[in-house]
Amino acid sequence: MRYCVADYLLDRLNECGIAHLFGVPGDYNLQFLDNVIAHPQLGWVGCANELNAAYAADGYARCNGAAALLTTFGVGELSAINGIAGSYAEYLPVIHVVGAPCLAAQLRGELMHHTLGDGDFQHFARMAKEVTVSQAALTPENACYEIDRVLRESLSKSRPGYLLLPSDVAQAPATKPAHSLALHVQSAETAVLDEFRKAAQEKLSESRSVALLADFLALRYAQQKALQQWMDDTPLPHATLLMGKGLFDEGQQGFIGTYSGAASEEGIKTAIEGAELVVCVGVKFTDTITAGFTQKLTTRQTIDIQPEAARIGDRWFSGLPMSQAVEVLHQLCKRQVSHRPVPHQKPPALPACESGILDQHALWQVVQNFLQPGDIVLADQGTAAFGAATLTLPAGTTFIAQPLWGSIGYTLPAAFGAQTACPHRRVVLLIGDGSAQLTIQELGSMQRDGQNPIILLLNNEGYTVERAIHGAEQRYNDIAPWNWTQLPQAMHLHCQAQCWRVTETVQLEEVMRKAAKAERLTLIEVVLPKQDIPELLQAVTSSLARRNSGEN
Amino acid sequence: MRYCVADYLLDRLNECGIAHLFGVPGDYNLQFLDNVIAHPQLGWVGCANELNAAYAADGYARCNGAAALLTTFGVGELSAINGIAGSYAEYLPVIHVVGAPCLAAQLRGELMHHTLGDGDFQHFARMAKEVTVSQAALTPENACYEIDRVLRESLSKSRPGYLLLPSDVAQAPATKPAHSLALHVQSAETAVLDEFRKAAQEKLSESRSVALLADFLALRYAQQKALQQWMDDTPLPHATLLMGKGLFDEGQQGFIGTYSGAASEEGIKTAIEGAELVVCVGVKFTDTITAGFTQKLTTRQTIDIQPEAARIGDRWFSGLPMSQAVEVLHQLCKRQVSHRPVPHQKPPALPACESGILDQHALWQVVQNFLQPGDIVLADQGTAAFGAATLTLPAGTTFIAQPLWGSIGYTLPAAFGAQTACPHRRVVLLIGDGSAQLTIQELGSMQRDGQNPIILLLNNEGYTVERAIHGAEQRYNDIAPWNWTQLPQAMHLHCQAQCWRVTETVQLEEVMRKAAKAERLTLIEVVLPKQDIPELLQAVTSSLARRNSGEN
Repeated sequence: MRYCVADYLLDRLNECGIAHLFGVPGDYNLQFLDNVIAHPQLGWVGCANELNAAYAADGYARCNGAAALLTTFGVGELSAINGIAGSYAEYLPVIHVVGAPCLAAQLRGELMHHTLGDGDFQHFARMAKEVTVSQAALTPENACYEIDRVLRESLSKSRPGYLLLPSDVAQAPATKPAHSLALHVQSAETAVLDEFRKAAQEKLSESRSVALLADFLALRYAQQKALQQWMDDTPLPHATLLMGKGLFDEGQQGFIGTYSGAASEEGIKTAIEGAELVVCVGVKFTDTITAGFTQKLTTRQTIDIQPEAARIGDRWFSGLPMSQAVEVLHQLCKRQVSHRPVPHQKPPALPACESGILDQHALWQVVQNFLQPGDIVLADQGTAAFGAATLTLPAGTTFIAQPLWGSIGYTLPAAFGAQTACPHRRVVLLIGDGSAQLTIQELGSMQRDGQNPIILLLNNEGYTVERAIHGAEQRYNDIAPWNWTQLPQAMHLHCQAQCWRVTETVQLEEVMRKAAKAERLTLIEVVLPKQDIPELLQAVTSSLARRNSGEN
Repeated sequence: MRYCVADYLLDRLNECGIAHLFGVPGDYNLQFLDNVIAHPQLGWVGCANELNAAYAADGYARCNGAAALLTTFGVGELSAINGIAGSYAEYLPVIHVVGAPCLAAQLRGELMHHTLGDGDFQHFARMAKEVTVSQAALTPENACYEIDRVLRESLSKSRPGYLLLPSDVAQAPATKPAHSLALHVQSAETAVLDEFRKAAQEKLSESRSVALLADFLALRYAQQKALQQWMDDTPLPHATLLMGKGLFDEGQQGFIGTYSGAASEEGIKTAIEGAELVVCVGVKFTDTITAGFTQKLTTRQTIDIQPEAARIGDRWFSGLPMSQAVEVLHQLCKRQVSHRPVPHQKPPALPACESGILDQHALWQVVQNFLQPGDIVLADQGTAAFGAATLTLPAGTTFIAQPLWGSIGYTLPAAFGAQTACPHRRVVLLIGDGSAQLTIQELGSMQRDGQNPIILLLNNEGYTVERAIHGAEQRYNDIAPWNWTQLPQAMHLHCQAQCWRVTETVQLEEVMRKAAKAERLTLIEVVLPKQDIPELLQAVTSSLARRNSGEN
């Protein structure tokens, strides 16, 4: 085959570290798929539907740094758009390639299928603009440099990009990239950096206690190693919020747990809010992870490090990349640290659980004991994510939840994507019954690809997180009752999965032991009381219920 | 409970003939759901996910005239938006109510969950604007009249409407509607009507042969009865395209079959294209239903009746409602009909099939024999819809396909919606394996609600329609292989379904006899050759393949 725009795009994606393309075929992307199949370094991963494919790509990006998604025009891209919006809200660079009708048909304004039948081919690009950081409508003339621009902007801003690729443009001749994509590494002006260093030094020296609060943007802007090194060199009391959980080795000296505003454990709250200076790195205080904005941190008390700017007290330093600001503070702490005691606080242990009843307490205790270093743990929005907030993760654990966008069902396909990115790591998925019904199809894709995740299906008969907010006994929080343990078999002709339904803690412990090696796909239906929710979630949902009524 | 905006909205929806609200609960719509549950004439129909709910609402609207959908903000509405876009493309009035964060939080620009975390609460409303005909962001002050406006515009244009309903606004006090919604019945100016009548009379009198070609917009603008009456009074050779199939009683004198441009049966093509005058009512010539715009009808040869305008030759009559134009032509034909012979042509019979092999020919023959007057038949985009085009439908059959928007998987939830609208009619669903995987969850909802559709699951190992366009043996057209007959059981705890897998025609005939009474949900997995496609689809896909390469 002659080298064409499709090949160019695939080479560039591959250069970004992307080795898999998720999606669903459609007639406007079929020829492009020939190029995908022929590409030596890029694998095609078909999903059961486009929303699931977008979630899978998001999960892949969280483990791999970036991801790509292929859909067809209109029907395909709009089915995926909620997943893309989630990647936008939570800062994941997912490149969405949309196979479109050929340019000539677009120019003639033809009434093609997968359009609104009005000759306007820009409706969906305009919609994509709301939830992507960079967009391009490719033509034979602009394809190569527009692909480069969108990839560069998407990767540097860590947010989704949109490429509209007409079927004929994909096959237009192109030449292999002559140079690498050259992601600009921004750096601050010397004057700004000097002033920031000076101000930070003053702030540090006048503060008798310093804590570090880091969250998801520190992960997205690749500060995990730098922060870990900082805490190794000069241990400070440090925590994440729920969105950034997994950023730190949670067994490390000084790690104190997950901060959740007023809903935090007392020790965590005191260590953070009571510190004279709190360095916040990549933090956004959103409602669910702060129990409704109950964080108590003053402007004076904080240094706030964002992706491209930092604040000390009330003074902003613009154009300062996160990595440089972190490095400055790390070095300053190294010089000053001898003044401060090494923290001894540990994350709070889970409450002891001796009743034998399988409830939220028992569940999380069992999960805590089950986890191993290097696991990928996914917890769906609802009881799963807020319960998981209280876990102490072993070293090298990747934790995936979606507390800001909060699209239920997200984690099941995301687990498929994460396992695709990391075939040799153990994937543990915690998801409620209500959530799993939204995206269950990917059980089939997991099995087709021989994946062996361990799935804890928390069956509490419906939308328990919604019950906690409103309508505890209302019919709308019920769901259709499924035979969960039969689903893996129904969704694969040659099913090797092991499935159990457990109602007691000892049963759960026993089957978890059998599941530990992850040699087969495992689905454990964990039957839990309908109204039982983790304590943190109780605090969060009370706040949400108040706010839905218009109260503060 | 005090009468509030939520009650007002529900009363108005009910006044529009809507007795069911489809959707998924979310924390921004939970309190509203209390009002739904309390409403005496409006039932809540929870679906497994939002896209499926939107499809179900669309199917309901096709049987019931209008429908309503409830989702939560951001995650919910964007998951549903592909379904709404389909309703927009194919002219279905589906009212999409979105439960949103309370107004105060919006005004403060808070970083709420289900937002993009940027304080902008209008992203999704802007996206909805591309695929809805009317939108409103409700406040306590504007709610009642804005609800009325959106419902009125949506119903009169037969397209979706969007209502953004903050959780606190839903509970704001309101008063019961004092007057009915008063849908304006537009009528043409007398002068326009007179001129149209005169021009139509001339055109008719100079034409020795007249045919009628009607399509989906005639259904949407409620012209089914009027057209049927016209054909009763003065039989003309008449046909629909695939989108409007089911508009006519297909056993009626003069009905000649489904017109598909160059891919039509010879007799149909001659009867339509060879007529000196063709009256087109509610027709849009889109690509898949014309085998790539191969219709041969000149401007001179046609009278084109659209929803709000009509054309005779090259002269447009603007502001003329479809109903009035149809009535004029009906009356003119009555006066002139004696000049013309009564047509005797019938729709072409399906080719005889005696091989015993279960292939597309045999399948459609069995389906043809199975259908009964009053059935609701749904055929998913792909081999199902294009195969069904060759059926001759018994009287009173409702036919549901989606040839313009063409979102695969649509018909399974649409069947759920259609059966909800018409619990006493028999629902027959024809869907391929590739398509069914996208939306399979609603098998659970069907069973929860005790529905008994007859589902023919056409298993041809993947995306056969895509194979026909491109990549016949490519891996991307394969799907994960499922145990189809086990799914109903997996998706309901107390499954009463009957499921069969058939590989021979006699088996299919036998189980169809057992299924005929529709006393239980029936799933028949029909194993078909992987590359076997209906003849019409062959013509369509060849055209699509050419056009994807940029050829005309």
